[in-house]
Parts: sequence; C-alpha cells; structure tokens
Amino acid sequence: MLPEQSRVVDLRAAEVLRQQARGASREAALRFASAVFPESMSAAIALGEQFLETANEAATRYGDDASCPFEGLQWAAACDPSIVRDGLTFVKHIRQFHERMKLTPAPALLQVPGYFKGSPWTVIGHEAEVPWPARAEKMDYELEIGWVIGRTAHDITPETARSHLFGVTIFNDFSARDLQANEFAIGMGPTKSKDFAYGIGPWITTIDEFSRLDRIRMAVRVNGETWGEGDTSEMLWSIDELIAYVSLGDHVQPGDVIGSGTMGNGSALELGRSLNPGDVVELEVSGVGVLRNRMGQRQQGTWWPTARKPFM
Amino acid sequence: MLPEQSRVVDLRAAEVLRQQARGASREAALRFASAVFPESMSAAIALGEQFLETANEAATRYGDDASCPFEGLQWAAACDPSIVRDGLTFVKHIRQFHERMKLTPAPALLQVPGYFKGSPWTVIGHEAEVPWPARAEKMDYELEIGWVIGRTAHDITPETARSHLFGVTIFNDFSARDLQANEFAIGMGPTKSKDFAYGIGPWITTIDEFSRLDRIRMAVRVNGETWGEGDTSEMLWSIDELIAYVSLGDHVQPGDVIGSGTMGNGSALELGRSLNPGDVVELEVSGVGVLRNRMGQRQQGTWWPTARKPFM
Repeated sequence: MLPEQSRVVDLRAAEVLRQQARGASREAALRFASAVFPESMSAAIALGEQFLETANEAATRYGDDASCPFEGLQWAAACDPSIVRDGLTFVKHIRQFHERMKLTPAPALLQVPGYFKGSPWTVIGHEAEVPWPARAEKMDYELEIGWVIGRTAHDITPETARSHLFGVTIFNDFSARDLQANEFAIGMGPTKSKDFAYGIGPWITTIDEFSRLDRIRMAVRVNGETWGEGDTSEMLWSIDELIAYVSLGDHVQPGDVIGSGTMGNGSALELGRSLNPGDVVELEVSGVGVLRNRMGQRQQGTWWPTARKPFM
Repeated sequence: MLPEQSRVVDLRAAEVLRQQARGASREAALRFASAVFPESMSAAIALGEQFLETANEAATRYGDDASCPFEGLQWAAACDPSIVRDGLTFVKHIRQFHERMKLTPAPALLQVPGYFKGSPWTVIGHEAEVPWPARAEKMDYELEIGWVIGRTAHDITPETARSHLFGVTIFNDFSARDLQANEFAIGMGPTKSKDFAYGIGPWITTIDEFSRLDRIRMAVRVNGETWGEGDTSEMLWSIDELIAYVSLGDHVQPGDVIGSGTMGNGSALELGRSLNPGDVVELEVSGVGVLRNRMGQRQQGTWWPTARKPFM
C-alpha cells in the first residue's frame, strides 16, 4: 500500500519478480509468492513474521514495478475475520446513547466488557455499497476502530494482549436502529439490525506505526459534512482488557477483527439523525485513512415473518 | 457410519479402494477421494450431490473393508459450522424458562424469530470433555436439535428453506447461568456464558431419513438418570421460517448449524437444578443417537476483569 501516492502494490506480483531475480523459475516463484500472499488476508497474517518480512522486501524492491493506481480498483474488505466481535468501550458514547434512548446504563456494563458477535459473511470493503436491510427505516453508522488480531489468543491476560495485536483498521458497524430496538428486547444480541454490513477498510496499518492507541483521532462525514469528531481516549475497558476478555474460553484467530465500540458522537443516533438511501458515509481515522461507503436503496417485497399471538 | 454395528466407515479409505478397483493408481485415487472427502465436513457438504452419491457408493461397496469399531475413536464434532446460530422455538421451554426466572416473555419474541450467534471455535464433539468456564458456578445443558445446512442460503423464503436442509444432528448449548444473567443485562447477547462449548454430534442423519421434523423424540440424562423428555412439537416458529429468517441479509453456509432452541424440560434450569464437575450429560434424539459429554473441573486462577465504578 502506497497511500501517499494513491497506489497499491500487488505483493504477490512483486514477490514473483523478486524471486525470479534471485534465480527462481516463474512457477516456483509463483508457488512461493502464493504461499506467503494467499487470497485470504487472515491466512497471510497467520504466517506472522515471514509475511511481514517478505511484504517489506517485496514492496521495497519491486513495489513500483508491481503497483497500480487507486482509480478503478474494487476494494475487498481489509480483512476476512473468522467472526466479527464488537465491544462497547467509549464512555461518552455509552452516556449519550443511554440519554438519547432514555435508558440508564445497566450496572452489568461495569462488571465485564460487553461485546456482541456478528456474521463474518456480511463484511464489506471500502467503496462497497451498503445493502439496506429489509423492513429497516432508521439507518445509522458507527465510527469505530477495528483492532486486527495477529496471533491465536486463548485465555490470555491483559499483560500479554498487546503482542497479539497485528494492526489497526477502520470499522463501520452499520446499524438499523428500529430493528435493533426489537432485538434488544429479545435479549439474544443483535441479528438483522447488524448482520447486513460491517465496513472494514480501506486497509490495515500495522501496530508498530502507532506510538499510542488512546489518542487516535477519528471523524465521520455524511455527504461531505462532518457529523462527529473525537478520539480514542476515555475507554471503560482498555484495549488489552478487551482482547484478553474476548479470548477467555474462546479462541481468537489471526485476522479476526474486534470493534472498539462506537466513539462518542460516533453515531447519528446520538445527534437524533439517521441516514437516507444514497448517503455517502466517510469514517476517517488518523494513521489509517478514510473508509467510504454509500447506502444502497430500500428493498421491496422481501419475505418477513408474521407476528405470533401471545402464548402466556 | 454403521451405528447398528457400532462401527464407523473411513469414507476416504473406502473410496480409494473403490477407485483402485476401477483402475485408478493409488495416487490418483487418493487425490479424488480427498477432494470428495476433505478434512472439513462443511467442505464435504458443500460439494452437494457428488458427496452424497460417492459416500453411498463407497460405503455400500467398501464400507466393511474400511471400517473400524467405535471403541478407541476420538470423535470430532459432527460438523464444523462457519458460525454457530441458535434459535428460541419451543413454546414450553420459553414458558417454563420465564416462570423460573420470574420474567414475562418480551412481546418482541412474538415479532421475529430470536436467535443468538456463537463462536465456531468452541464446538466440541461426542465424548469430549466440557471446559468449565472461568467464574461460573451454575452450569447447565440445553437439549436441542442441530439443523445442518446443505446449501448457501441468502434472502430465501420459508417455501424454499427445506431444500437447504442437509440433515439433523444433536446440539447441546451448554450454558453458565450465572454469567448469562449478567450478559443478558448488558443486552449484546451471550458471550462467556455460551462461548466455551457447543456440543455437536455424534453424527449427522441426512434429512431424507425423517418423514416429519415436528415429532422427533428427545431426552436428556444426567449420570444415567432421565432429567427431561419430549419432542419437537409446539414450535413458535417453523424450521422453515427460522432458516429463512436467519438467511435474511446474511449468508448461511453449507455445514452451518442452526440450533432449534431448547426443548421444553430440556434444561436443568427449568427443574431448579444445575450440573457439577464430572457429571455426564447424554442427549438422545430419535433418528440420530446419543451425544455424551462429561463436565470438566473448575478452573483456578484465570484472569478476570476488575469491575468499574459507575460513570453516570
């Protein structure tokens, strides 16, 4: 990735050139390059040091020869997590969300880091259109960091959590607020209010490029107008605590993305606003870039379950 | 699978024998057999007709030569779902659960099929020990059917849902009731109360072996004593509605498992009881078999987050 030049490097192609220059046959070079740079970003991250080292060498020596401009690119999601997990961390957002919903935060929120799990099959990338979910009216974005995991984590402690962090991306937890209210009352976590699109992109910045993670600046623009600004300070749970907690009993995989939770002023709900079909949502995160998505059109004629009669 | 004889067939080995008898070299036979019977059950199911046809032919002709007895086997989970989803369907369970918890069912439950999503990384098979989750005291089982999906489903209707169903397995949604109460209050769905073990097994019975799906008999035994019995009748949402709803906006994959929700009398909670370390839980489902798991021992010294002070 050469964001300053608005170009991307095809790492596999660059590595083929590099290996051929070192005497490999084209077939062998391609075999090696495909093993280091597979289709799946999670599979690449899972290779660890070798992946980063080779990426560095390939990009440094042959990046220019194997790069192309941003224009005309179709962006995949920056990552293909095995499952989406999304926390609830920023105090200002929790406060404003509850004020707006006329709710008091549950004392339970203070006991353990809350997070929900989302379908990995609805992850979308930069510039992808957001499918408007069936029966939804009140659409929203959520401005979040996506913490990208580098190594399998199981029952780890906050002290060792940081070494499991591969990088930082931008995470847009698009939400259908009207569907979410009903799902909240069911109490089994969000389903249709979230599992239609998780924006992840445009790319991942590796963790070594950040001197600290609690002063990252963030902003959201809708149709070019700034709707919210802030940073990653004032977290109820540290990033290390969140990662460690998610790993308890469970197995967090390389390439998994854990959403930071919404930044204060990071949702339209907090402003009493919502999105319309065709709106363009841009999330900006310092040290990463801009994740831009356009809302799709309302769907017609989708099947929807018929409500049941009370049985108690 | 030859359950009557307490033997399993190694389908890949049987198919190698079959292809060699048809003139294939050992290498080519192994290549073909590995493509049809890969390590992943989901990948096998995704092959559709070819998988079922070849399995039938291999087992019929060479099953005896490539089988081994149950004794000494280590059982993998019957399936490797890309994500776990678990519904809430049986009216008797919903009624008894709410009576026991002194709660009234949310009217929201009558609007759409409720379901939660679970980590695919904590799926366990027949005879596997259940890890006792950190800080949990009140452990429970849940007696459920696992509906195994055969074909990718996206925005389907109940009318076509049945053709996406591959088979039936037994699903034990082990639950830590004390952790669950706190997570319920957070409202983001279950996390540590469920993501430590989902029992799936011992195997899958293909859907053609069931004449109807709403009269399947089920029972649960703890240490050999029957704690609950019933069947799959009186569903709030039909299986077809549940599958169609899960597919809305989302993408259900071959090999995914959707839990039916707990049968009435299918949890110890409904009886005011709970499990102890070392207890043996057996779920029996007619037309499938028995899924047996032993509860592990309590964990000592695991890290746990420190509660926060109120901020509102």
